[in-house]
Amino acid sequence: MSRFAQTPEPPYYAVIFTSTRTPGDQGYAAMAEMMLELAASQPGFLGVESAREELGITVSYWADPESISRWKADLAHREAQRLGRETWYSGYRVRISKVERDYGISIS
Amino acid sequence: MSRFAQTPEPPYYAVIFTSTRTPGDQGYAAMAEMMLELAASQPGFLGVESAREELGITVSYWADPESISRWKADLAHREAQRLGRETWYSGYRVRISKVERDYGISIS
Repeated sequence: MSRFAQTPEPPYYAVIFTSTRTPGDQGYAAMAEMMLELAASQPGFLGVESAREELGITVSYWADPESISRWKADLAHREAQRLGRETWYSGYRVRISKVERDYGISIS
Repeated sequence: MSRFAQTPEPPYYAVIFTSTRTPGDQGYAAMAEMMLELAASQPGFLGVESAREELGITVSYWADPESISRWKADLAHREAQRLGRETWYSGYRVRISKVERDYGISIS
C-alpha cells in the first residue's frame, strides 16, 4: 500500500504540522493512532502523510478551510491538542496552506 | 539548534516534497546534503524541515512562487532531479502551496 496521500486536483488545503517530542511515550502512540482514525472520518479529509526523525512532520490534506476549522474544534481532538501542549510536544508549529499545484510520479 | 524552520509572518510558500526511496544509497546522501546547501543559498529561501521513515517528507519554505520556479530550473538541481527520477526515488510527489496562517510554540 502506498503511503502517499491520494489527493484530488488542486486547489485543496494542507496542514503542515511539525513537532519535537518530549522523552517517553506517555500515551502518545495510542492517541496518535486514535486521532488519525478520527481525522480520516471527518468531512473534507483527503489524506495524510507522516514521518518522524529528530523532527516529526505530519501533513494532512483537506478539501477547504472550513473542514480544517471543524477538525481543530472537534472535542476529542481538542483534548489531544491539550495533552500535546502539556505533555507530548517540546515544540510544534502548525501551518495552514493552500495547495495550488502538484505533480509527481504516482506509485501504488 | 532547532530543526524548525524560522519562517516569517504569512503569506509565504511551502513546497511539500514526499518520496519513497529505492534500496541502497547510490550517492543519494551526499547529493541531498549538497542540494540542501545550494537551496539555502537561493534568493527567497526561508527554511526547510525534513524527516524520513517509510515515507520521506521535506518541506521547503520560500518567499514567493518565482523563487520556487528559479530553484526548480537551477542547473545543478535539474541534474539532481533527473537522478532522483532515474535512480533514488521509487515514487515522489511535489505540492506547491501558499501558507496562509501559522501558529505554534517556538522553541530554541
